Amino acid sequence: MKTRDRILNAALDLFNQSGEQHVTTNHIADEIDISPGNLYYHFRNKEDIIGELFDAYSDRMHDLLTAPDDRVHDPEEVWLLLHLIFETIWQYRFVHTNLVDLTQRIRKIHIQMSHITSELEQMVVQLCKPMVREGIMNASADELQRVATTMSLMSMYWLNYGSISELGKMNEGLMAHGAYQVISTVSPYLNEPWRSHLNHLAESYRFKP
Amino acid sequence: MKTRDRILNAALDLFNQSGEQHVTTNHIADEIDISPGNLYYHFRNKEDIIGELFDAYSDRMHDLLTAPDDRVHDPEEVWLLLHLIFETIWQYRFVHTNLVDLTQRIRKIHIQMSHITSELEQMVVQLCKPMVREGIMNASADELQRVATTMSLMSMYWLNYGSISELGKMNEGLMAHGAYQVISTVSPYLNEPWRSHLNHLAESYRFKP
Repeated sequence: MKTRDRILNAALDLFNQSGEQHVTTNHIADEIDISPGNLYYHFRNKEDIIGELFDAYSDRMHDLLTAPDDRVHDPEEVWLLLHLIFETIWQYRFVHTNLVDLTQRIRKIHIQMSHITSELEQMVVQLCKPMVREGIMNASADELQRVATTMSLMSMYWLNYGSISELGKMNEGLMAHGAYQVISTVSPYLNEPWRSHLNHLAESYRFKP
Repeated sequence: MKTRDRILNAALDLFNQSGEQHVTTNHIADEIDISPGNLYYHFRNKEDIIGELFDAYSDRMHDLLTAPDDRVHDPEEVWLLLHLIFETIWQYRFVHTNLVDLTQRIRKIHIQMSHITSELEQMVVQLCKPMVREGIMNASADELQRVATTMSLMSMYWLNYGSISELGKMNEGLMAHGAYQVISTVSPYLNEPWRSHLNHLAESYRFKP
């Protein structure tokens, strides 16, 4: 692996483990046994490394949040998508656990996060519209927007809520339970038999202690 | 007003405006025109001031989140309660915008926040149960728990989501719209005519640009 990539991988691991604010470029260099000088040959400073990692996170999210085509999607398809989103959030969790600080310090991250939340909300609305049209879902335009805001907000702050609430006890079950919680937002708006079908599908991901 | 209270008031204002991490005890002393020595006579350090402000926030939340009695509450009553919760969150907004950092640095705040989210979730379940019993609401025990988690998470991170999403443009309308968004979580579980009644009530708080 190239040194540049090894630096990025080590930084991501350390940021995720200890929180970005507690990791210095020296820690990162130590971790992969290179000199600080070698690290500075590849990156000017820590903000450069953060920027590159955030770009990778943002690119991955953009890929996942492309506007879906105007048909009813299988619940399994939506479910997979949500899992990929939660997987990405977990993979770059330092972004989510330090969101206020990062968006305040680095203007570009603020702008990119605002795009991501907006794309996420739009995608939810786009996924739901065909279901409303086909009588699978019963929701007004306002209700759809509310569902979209709820799902986006919960995805963004699920990890944070886990760290301050009883949910934290789930440990490795936390992310699957998050996907369950987020997808369930739609369920009361579904007509039968779709509501039962979704609840049944979601149930397998619910955390049971 | 006593110097001690003037210090607390000034600290709360500055923390809310600039973020607690950017405010020093010297800023606080300057703000109310006292010497740093006078401030240290009342508080050992900044953590002491944060602790006292957090206790006030936590006491206020505990008062609001007392277990409701086992009857169906008027929507207007629940609505008022939610507004008081959002008002408290706004009044102590430095807590919410810096939650990860504060809970990591100060163990007591972590424990208290965990209690608050747990009380908030329990209160939602307690408020909904009589409505299910009386046929006003249609939700399983799992669905009630999901609603409770959603409402608690959204209340806790509404301000944060506002700061990274399009919602931030609402400015002074943000908190009222948050109460609208949170209470609306319940509405798809309500039977008619209660669903329409709640949507009608909530509508007056929806932000309209």
